[in-house]
Amino acid sequence: MARPDTAPPVPTDAPAPDVLPGLLTGTADREAVATDRSGYRPASLPDGVVRATRVEDVVDTLRWATAHRVPVVPRGAGSGLAAGASAHAGEVVLDLSGMDRILEIRPADQVAVAEPGVLTGDLDAAAHEHGLFYAPDPASAAYCSIGGNIATNAGGLRCAKYGVTRESVLGLDLVLADGRRVRTGRQTVKGVAGYDLTSLVVGSEGTLAVVVGATLRLRPRPDETATLAAHFADVGTAAAAAAAITAARLQPSVLELLDEATLLAVDAARGTSLRSSGSAMLLAQCDGRGAQADIAALGAVVGRFTPHHRSTTDPVEAAGLLEARRAALPSLELTGDVFIEDVAVPRSQLAAAVEGIAAISARTGVRIATVAHAGDGNLHPIVVVPRGESVTEGPAWEAAGAVFTLALGLGGTLTGEHGVGILKRAWLREEVGDDSLDLQRAVKAVFDPLGILNPGKAI
Amino acid sequence: MARPDTAPPVPTDAPAPDVLPGLLTGTADREAVATDRSGYRPASLPDGVVRATRVEDVVDTLRWATAHRVPVVPRGAGSGLAAGASAHAGEVVLDLSGMDRILEIRPADQVAVAEPGVLTGDLDAAAHEHGLFYAPDPASAAYCSIGGNIATNAGGLRCAKYGVTRESVLGLDLVLADGRRVRTGRQTVKGVAGYDLTSLVVGSEGTLAVVVGATLRLRPRPDETATLAAHFADVGTAAAAAAAITAARLQPSVLELLDEATLLAVDAARGTSLRSSGSAMLLAQCDGRGAQADIAALGAVVGRFTPHHRSTTDPVEAAGLLEARRAALPSLELTGDVFIEDVAVPRSQLAAAVEGIAAISARTGVRIATVAHAGDGNLHPIVVVPRGESVTEGPAWEAAGAVFTLALGLGGTLTGEHGVGILKRAWLREEVGDDSLDLQRAVKAVFDPLGILNPGKAI
Repeated sequence: MARPDTAPPVPTDAPAPDVLPGLLTGTADREAVATDRSGYRPASLPDGVVRATRVEDVVDTLRWATAHRVPVVPRGAGSGLAAGASAHAGEVVLDLSGMDRILEIRPADQVAVAEPGVLTGDLDAAAHEHGLFYAPDPASAAYCSIGGNIATNAGGLRCAKYGVTRESVLGLDLVLADGRRVRTGRQTVKGVAGYDLTSLVVGSEGTLAVVVGATLRLRPRPDETATLAAHFADVGTAAAAAAAITAARLQPSVLELLDEATLLAVDAARGTSLRSSGSAMLLAQCDGRGAQADIAALGAVVGRFTPHHRSTTDPVEAAGLLEARRAALPSLELTGDVFIEDVAVPRSQLAAAVEGIAAISARTGVRIATVAHAGDGNLHPIVVVPRGESVTEGPAWEAAGAVFTLALGLGGTLTGEHGVGILKRAWLREEVGDDSLDLQRAVKAVFDPLGILNPGKAI
Repeated sequence: MARPDTAPPVPTDAPAPDVLPGLLTGTADREAVATDRSGYRPASLPDGVVRATRVEDVVDTLRWATAHRVPVVPRGAGSGLAAGASAHAGEVVLDLSGMDRILEIRPADQVAVAEPGVLTGDLDAAAHEHGLFYAPDPASAAYCSIGGNIATNAGGLRCAKYGVTRESVLGLDLVLADGRRVRTGRQTVKGVAGYDLTSLVVGSEGTLAVVVGATLRLRPRPDETATLAAHFADVGTAAAAAAAITAARLQPSVLELLDEATLLAVDAARGTSLRSSGSAMLLAQCDGRGAQADIAALGAVVGRFTPHHRSTTDPVEAAGLLEARRAALPSLELTGDVFIEDVAVPRSQLAAAVEGIAAISARTGVRIATVAHAGDGNLHPIVVVPRGESVTEGPAWEAAGAVFTLALGLGGTLTGEHGVGILKRAWLREEVGDDSLDLQRAVKAVFDPLGILNPGKAI
């Protein structure tokens, strides 16, 4: 893509119309975009939805919203887990899922340019055709979008080695709250000209600007992988093994932990018998020309904690092993309504976190299944309630709050990769402090002085 | 380090003193901190310098500066290359080089906590004792400091694989312009609670806040490395070989290019005969358990461009090969006064950039030697003038300007890792555009409403 020296001009002289063309106000349209996959149910429906297919739709919507002071909730694929895209009466949803074109893949630069509605898995598949891949791979990769990944700084299985979305975003094409277009970042892999507005927008959950395009870093797809599965007597031992892998200075590209409740759910959903081999499981993958040697070294560490481990270099067998992890959430969702937490702790605290979560579950009687991106200390305790009960209030929510407090007490964070949304705001001040939150709110006011972009979310 | 939930209280009720204790105003003291290694000479000396050794010194200085509206220039080791730490009459320098303690290394978390004055090479050496390393390694690692690296988002040789400073900073301990302390980021390797103020401050060249502590990511030190040196008939062929390495989806941890002018200077300084093997050179290193196989694959690609290449797994021989790169700048500095440019281009444009720079040198008659971090498209054209002539005005500066324009025309950036400082501000608006620069200035005003932090730099 030839990058223009300046963003294209916007006809800011034309008055915004009283009625926004393309605003859909039917009940079914509004119900379809009212919330995400967090389990949060707003008390009312949004006033309408715009289904954007072009940048101009976004510009028009924001100019209209600025003129009429209407709050706008940007929305990607609706796969969020913190209610960051939920909307209620008085708000208009800006649905970006129809802006779904991969504009360019430049193999020689290992760069892609994509619209926000492109599904993450689709971008990865397109990169594969050039021997490349897109590193961030949330478990939801098949149904989440690049724009939503940027909004939450999404991670996934492979970020143990390759980093999160922020490490893969080189530049952004933004529409500001008043309809102006601004480009941030660059096409190069390095650069420090001006403040890093790209990183500021990544993870800002649609509260600073609307992403209408992204220049993304691709990476060489490794030719070789080796995969290990290990079964443990208990989850504390599995977590200790994961910490030992880090301490042994090994760097798997994937290191996932599944606890007993998760294994039982996967077994029930898929007819496997994972639980029969132990009450916790680790899945590890190494890649590159040293993959076999790396997985052998990793197996030697794991062997100090359990005799039950095996490895493979067969891609089909490896995919089968990793499928247990990808099936975890859908399997648990078959057993009830869920809220997926996303705390992260320093890697040495992984076992303490896992054991603390088990204690919270035992004390409260609330069912909590835990999977973890163990390679970077990011845990997903999954709170499960009987179908129809609320996960975001009552005992389930109190248990979730106890997990937040546990993570902060271990030197951790509320959210590793899902974002704050609505649901974690109550704990944010405790994590970041008053002065930092004041700065963040002042930065928000620079980008969005009227406060119309996704109000009440993220900060 | 136990992280307090909130930043420690600051006694903002006490009035700032009229005279700042510890302000040194002797001529020798002021001359020692007037500029950096960019070649820029301010027309006057700063009014004084505070040599901070404790956080309280920084707080006191900024409270005093806020009360009296005195501009403050934060300074690390003075190794900057864009005049970002230069100071003149009316300004006070805040020298942080005396805050040089490594506060903590936590091997199990692969995290270090350091004060800003710690030399980058010293932190790396301390990490080595735990089998770890600190990835960013500017060629100046022996005499540059962590605080300055954060201010400029410094890179170096290894960032081809491991990323720049931003990818290694997990959290910051800041003093704001008014003396308040704020912590950003976290101790975990992932996190998205609140806006990414850490990334915003990294690369901001002391214009947003003063860094008084940093929580840094360490990485496992690879047990195995393999290193290749290749000699080419001309620099265009060497650049084409570097692009072919990227296109072959190889990922060396180091990939450095040296042109003829650089080789001649190194030969003259060190008594080597590098130029006799060809007029351009590539140095590549791979690491990890696949290092030998990776370097063999890399050698096969290089072999399509030159028969003159050799590789080694001997660390001593490898260090000798890489020493040519580390010696490049000191060798060129023996031949005249220098200004080191820092442009970056998309990796496919490396050969076009190298050839364009040679054409500028030929057209203007200004001597330009080029070294490049070829793995990420970051070039350091080094403008050399006879001793005593100015590099930042006249024909030398016009040639430098032509290189900036060339880089922007190739879709690149003014600066990959050295920062904008004073010297590149004239080109910044062309790169980032009016609206982006306006946003950046508004963000600056949030952090520093009185504009006392390093005014006139970076943006």
